[in-house]
Amino acid sequence: MLANHPDKEQIRLENVLTALGNPLRLTVVRVLAGGGEHACSAVLSGIPKSTLTHHWRVLRDSGVIWQRPFGRENLLSLRREDLDTRFPGLLDVLLGAVENDELTQESTTRNLPPLSSK
Amino acid sequence: MLANHPDKEQIRLENVLTALGNPLRLTVVRVLAGGGEHACSAVLSGIPKSTLTHHWRVLRDSGVIWQRPFGRENLLSLRREDLDTRFPGLLDVLLGAVENDELTQESTTRNLPPLSSK
Repeated sequence: MLANHPDKEQIRLENVLTALGNPLRLTVVRVLAGGGEHACSAVLSGIPKSTLTHHWRVLRDSGVIWQRPFGRENLLSLRREDLDTRFPGLLDVLLGAVENDELTQESTTRNLPPLSSK
Repeated sequence: MLANHPDKEQIRLENVLTALGNPLRLTVVRVLAGGGEHACSAVLSGIPKSTLTHHWRVLRDSGVIWQRPFGRENLLSLRREDLDTRFPGLLDVLLGAVENDELTQESTTRNLPPLSSK
């Protein structure tokens, strides 16, 4: 278990919903849903570093992402298995909205990194 | 359209998630999911009126509930059809967690009105 991450059993739905109730953090889920680990500098574009640090903390503390140090950076990945076990269908529903709901798609596209917005 | 309620097309996923990222407001959804209109004084128990007013506003402004004046009170109902149309599966997933996820069940039981907690 990494420091500052809740155990799977400690994740609370209300914290996950609060974490995802923000267009930038929903964008992060959109990017990480592709799988694997992403350098935190490559997940959102056009956002000041101090703001990013805040968003990583909210996502990590609520149990949405893993964050692990790697060299000078942190690597981020989605806790997909844990979230799917605790709240079956939640991520699929949210990713479905990102894909199919016009307003959600728009609000999670603005700060995509260049490669992901293709 | 009632005043202060977003149109169905204006509802934003991030606002809905923020609204529901709170155990009391998730309890409201749990109660209203049974259908019909509920007097706002009968939806949560043990909460001061000023706190309730705040929660109704967050739920109404985000598009989660309808709130309409009736005599000296307001009647509340879930915007189930609108939410199901905009974000298919979201309410079902959340209500599934309320039913099956121990932590979520616990945090949405504390302030149920006497009749609903049976």
